[in-house]
Amino acid sequence: MTDVKGDRMLTPSQQEDPDLFVHIHRRLPNGGIVLRGAKAHQTGTLNSHWMIVMPGAALKEADKDYAVCCAIPIDAPGITYIYGRQSCDLRAMEVGNEIDQGNAKFGGQETMVCFEDVEVPPELVFMDGEVEFTGLLVERFTAYHRRSYVCKAGLGDVMLGAAATVSDYNGTSKASHIKDKLVEIAFLNETIAGTALAASYGGKPTPSGNFLPEILMANVCKQHVTRMPYEIARLTQDLAGGFLVTLPGDKEFSHPVAGALLEKYMKAKKGVTVENRRRILRLIENMTMGRNAVGYLSESMHGAGSPQAQRVLIARLMDLEAKKKLAKHLAGIVE
Amino acid sequence: MTDVKGDRMLTPSQQEDPDLFVHIHRRLPNGGIVLRGAKAHQTGTLNSHWMIVMPGAALKEADKDYAVCCAIPIDAPGITYIYGRQSCDLRAMEVGNEIDQGNAKFGGQETMVCFEDVEVPPELVFMDGEVEFTGLLVERFTAYHRRSYVCKAGLGDVMLGAAATVSDYNGTSKASHIKDKLVEIAFLNETIAGTALAASYGGKPTPSGNFLPEILMANVCKQHVTRMPYEIARLTQDLAGGFLVTLPGDKEFSHPVAGALLEKYMKAKKGVTVENRRRILRLIENMTMGRNAVGYLSESMHGAGSPQAQRVLIARLMDLEAKKKLAKHLAGIVE
Amino acid sequence: MTDVKGDRMLTPSQQEDPDLFVHIHRRLPNGGIVLRGAKAHQTGTLNSHWMIVMPGAALKEADKDYAVCCAIPIDAPGITYIYGRQSCDLRAMEVGNEIDQGNAKFGGQETMVCFEDVEVPPELVFMDGEVEFTGLLVERFTAYHRRSYVCKAGLGDVMLGAAATVSDYNGTSKASHIKDKLVEIAFLNETIAGTALAASYGGKPTPSGNFLPEILMANVCKQHVTRMPYEIARLTQDLAGGFLVTLPGDKEFSHPVAGALLEKYMKAKKGVTVENRRRILRLIENMTMGRNAVGYLSESMHGAGSPQAQRVLIARLMDLEAKKKLAKHLAGIVE
Amino acid sequence: MTDVKGDRMLTPSQQEDPDLFVHIHRRLPNGGIVLRGAKAHQTGTLNSHWMIVMPGAALKEADKDYAVCCAIPIDAPGITYIYGRQSCDLRAMEVGNEIDQGNAKFGGQETMVCFEDVEVPPELVFMDGEVEFTGLLVERFTAYHRRSYVCKAGLGDVMLGAAATVSDYNGTSKASHIKDKLVEIAFLNETIAGTALAASYGGKPTPSGNFLPEILMANVCKQHVTRMPYEIARLTQDLAGGFLVTLPGDKEFSHPVAGALLEKYMKAKKGVTVENRRRILRLIENMTMGRNAVGYLSESMHGAGSPQAQRVLIARLMDLEAKKKLAKHLAGIVE
Repeated sequence: MTDVKGDRMLTPSQQEDPDLFVHIHRRLPNGGIVLRGAKAHQTGTLNSHWMIVMPGAALKEADKDYAVCCAIPIDAPGITYIYGRQSCDLRAMEVGNEIDQGNAKFGGQETMVCFEDVEVPPELVFMDGEVEFTGLLVERFTAYHRRSYVCKAGLGDVMLGAAATVSDYNGTSKASHIKDKLVEIAFLNETIAGTALAASYGGKPTPSGNFLPEILMANVCKQHVTRMPYEIARLTQDLAGGFLVTLPGDKEFSHPVAGALLEKYMKAKKGVTVENRRRILRLIENMTMGRNAVGYLSESMHGAGSPQAQRVLIARLMDLEAKKKLAKHLAGIVE
Repeated sequence: MTDVKGDRMLTPSQQEDPDLFVHIHRRLPNGGIVLRGAKAHQTGTLNSHWMIVMPGAALKEADKDYAVCCAIPIDAPGITYIYGRQSCDLRAMEVGNEIDQGNAKFGGQETMVCFEDVEVPPELVFMDGEVEFTGLLVERFTAYHRRSYVCKAGLGDVMLGAAATVSDYNGTSKASHIKDKLVEIAFLNETIAGTALAASYGGKPTPSGNFLPEILMANVCKQHVTRMPYEIARLTQDLAGGFLVTLPGDKEFSHPVAGALLEKYMKAKKGVTVENRRRILRLIENMTMGRNAVGYLSESMHGAGSPQAQRVLIARLMDLEAKKKLAKHLAGIVE
Repeated sequence: MTDVKGDRMLTPSQQEDPDLFVHIHRRLPNGGIVLRGAKAHQTGTLNSHWMIVMPGAALKEADKDYAVCCAIPIDAPGITYIYGRQSCDLRAMEVGNEIDQGNAKFGGQETMVCFEDVEVPPELVFMDGEVEFTGLLVERFTAYHRRSYVCKAGLGDVMLGAAATVSDYNGTSKASHIKDKLVEIAFLNETIAGTALAASYGGKPTPSGNFLPEILMANVCKQHVTRMPYEIARLTQDLAGGFLVTLPGDKEFSHPVAGALLEKYMKAKKGVTVENRRRILRLIENMTMGRNAVGYLSESMHGAGSPQAQRVLIARLMDLEAKKKLAKHLAGIVE
Repeated sequence: MTDVKGDRMLTPSQQEDPDLFVHIHRRLPNGGIVLRGAKAHQTGTLNSHWMIVMPGAALKEADKDYAVCCAIPIDAPGITYIYGRQSCDLRAMEVGNEIDQGNAKFGGQETMVCFEDVEVPPELVFMDGEVEFTGLLVERFTAYHRRSYVCKAGLGDVMLGAAATVSDYNGTSKASHIKDKLVEIAFLNETIAGTALAASYGGKPTPSGNFLPEILMANVCKQHVTRMPYEIARLTQDLAGGFLVTLPGDKEFSHPVAGALLEKYMKAKKGVTVENRRRILRLIENMTMGRNAVGYLSESMHGAGSPQAQRVLIARLMDLEAKKKLAKHLAGIVE
């Protein structure tokens, strides 16, 4: 959905290069279309079978050729995927170093997807120039997408568990300020979950039979997602202690001299192995600074629209006129 | 529910005066009971027909006589109600001064309810010494009560409307920082609504057929209620401007000399009457400092339990063990 | 300094009524001037001997007659003072009810000051039409004024003391969450003090010999003043408990029946008199909702300029160009 | 100063292994001492000539041998340094990839320093068993150290510059919400600077002639350092946009096919080179997730003591008794 966008203050057709937003370059005799342009930040494209192309903002008449929505198989001719770098990506490729990777099993990836004259047959084209529907399309799609960011509450559960585990290992989990920070993490995290659930429970069917989440609440949820994970990460780094960023690596732990010293000096609470302490510290590093921080933090900020995008929707949907009436009624105001 | 409590660090039976928590003073031959003690902060008792007496915390065996739950008609012999003072209560009694009262139609009131040997017949006694159920009773009752604090989102809607109206009247409603503060008010307020709705939607039936809201989420909701209204009030005071606290009163506006000057100098945006400007300013004063600030702010803090009471519940219900398992699994920890 | 301003989006000369900002109505043959207009929110005028009139914002050529600065004795002919109402002002006039007043000794007051053809002799006129200096004048004056808002840290000390005292009285002062909230109050409050001190220590002499505080830091200080006292008040209301808003009044405490019951049931920690408990609760009510909340909260918001006024100054003084250079140098950017 | 500490709930002599805190293992006939133990998180040891060993907390009589303070040349026999891993450390070693490194010129490093029977001659021993001075020593040293954390305001200046530059490059720097976020960054950052300056200006000479910063304010400063940089980083990630974490690497930009596509599609505002855009994005990645995030974020949290350590000092120094007196005086309380 997200175009590369060029100068953010210009509309698609005002850009110096018309390709900075994906658009219909030409139309085929059979009713099909030929696409040019590029989409940025595409999470998980490489492990998908199909992609759906959509405009990323409401468009006006002058941008008619940018109002395009269609399905494309992931290996269609003319598409180039360019893989993005991630924090600590090289560590993820260190052979046999599962511990330092923090979370050796899961990660995500983003690509830039470039379209060089990609042909789409007419039966896979869902929108072609209907600019008057782009605003509604974006509002509805982002409602689904923003509501779906409840997934970050799942990652927040992992953070809460990691924060509690590292406190257990350090021997600090009975301290009142530690317990209170764990409660704060849970409280912040459940707020994401609660507002997401409310958006779904408040969903209504459209005439077509789809269910649409409550749009205002979906935006409230996503707005929290742009704030809470950062604070949860901060609190978890607080509980982890300085070893989060000073812990030596696997090569040191395997070294005949350094390894023995580390095994001696990294002892924490009785009964906790040094290896397990390393593992929980590396998981927290991975999720707050490393490869999965991309998904837990920065993607929470920008995925499904940056914070201001949600505020624009909240402004539109908060129904100020109805609320002014309430206040005026109570104040005895007659205009 | 809330006893007067005496020294907060002592249990009911440890207090110097046994009456600092409501308790069964003696039992009657017919199976009825005689109550002594006092309940504080009872909202709306004076406009009720019945009251339900309940313990306010989990009790142990030594406090058996304090484990009492019963229904009492509001005018039962032996009860004394003592009305509390509220901010600006005298202004509410100024005859004919509807404008300065801010919200002349609605308000609340709290009383202390003193029980001096109040007899309760056996058919109205629901708990008599079953200390083992007091914890569950309090947890469930407070779940209902804390979830019900979604009512403050209704007051928040009024605040949003008042903040928008005063900005219209001052002529500032097009300024970007004003619009952004209105969005922030809506965002904070909808968070209360969303977590309350999630608590209800996640409700489950008990064997008796009652529906119980999801307890963790009800506590998350109430915890927000102890924070958001204060920030909404702060933002609304920001938008209101200094006249919120320097506006002269109705006697000045009715005075032959001062009134004419005020009518001239209190003009704001074209088309707005000075009277309406006064009315919206007084409503905001009423809800952030005056009589209804009791309900919108302080009661949001303390009603259904002060902030720490929710944190105790969140701590108990956040299921740390399950979340530690998630983190340990991802980190590859085997213990 | 603060004019009544009319429509906030219009300049002085664009207003429907030219008197909505104080201005030179005509000039006298002796070089003196005649003023018309009104100043709002004037704190402490009634207990002063002289006032200084100044413009409240940078002005352009079209508003030349509004660029006026002069000294006027408080009882000059043509001036009318109109006293503003304050939250709980009537309680302050209840004869003999010192306790319910919370702080019976100190308070402030604001007036609207109306100028109807007030003559000022030439020797007391300091600015007459020099619009080019109005921006500098406002920037410098507000630096002094905003830095002077360190006074609210003094009130914050009182709040900290009140919060600690009410916790002592309730018997809760050993609870870890109570202690932590006291630390948070101190931390927030010292931030006001620290930034104010830094503004003064960084002050520099002007060629005239005056010392001018560091303007950026003075604005940082005042910005904190628009936030911290509200949070300190919220935390203090948390510690105070519900009696803050449900405590009966002096008439009830003096009543033969109610008074005896209250004396029995308002007992808190051993050794604390009920009267002293009432006194500390009333002080907190007074400072967070009552007469002195005007000074501690709303004036902290709006005095010396509302929050956005400080942000405009911070934007102007944060020296973005120098900071871009730092970042570009480290990133190896050559443009 | 920071020992490896083992179980955080146990004192040095209570640990299973006596070496988990650095201590005097034996005393030499010449009055010198022999050290055992390890210090963690030692920033910059490897580029120093000398180190000073100190205890990290107030000690009691039972921990007499842990009350040791001395100077040691960095290459003394018996010392082993173990280098810690940092986020993105491998990227810092990619030959010829200056751009992806974000900040190719500067970084820091931490080591664990292990002492295996390190001899210290008597003239370099400054404390040997004087447990009664350990509390004062730690309080004073941390005052210097916490006050010195004003250095993070320098990094904050870089962040502000980077946030402004990336906004310029994206073409968004005129949007009101972008400008407001830059102001917020400056405001938060200057708060660190202001409280640090106040701590120094309020410094007082000790009898020895040293100047000691004002201890309470130094702790207030450091407490802000544990919060503000995280929020500044969050705001900067907001302004940077998604390319912060999806930007392809230098190998892609140098690739014949991918490079040409990237050069086309990474164009932003007219006149901005793609290389410079990459550089500013990589600097922000480096400081918020990569190698310098260690210094800007996690070290801000834990360096010179974790957040709770400052709160303990604020609690001790906030002088609650004096502040209770103020409140009691105003409330008319006589005890």
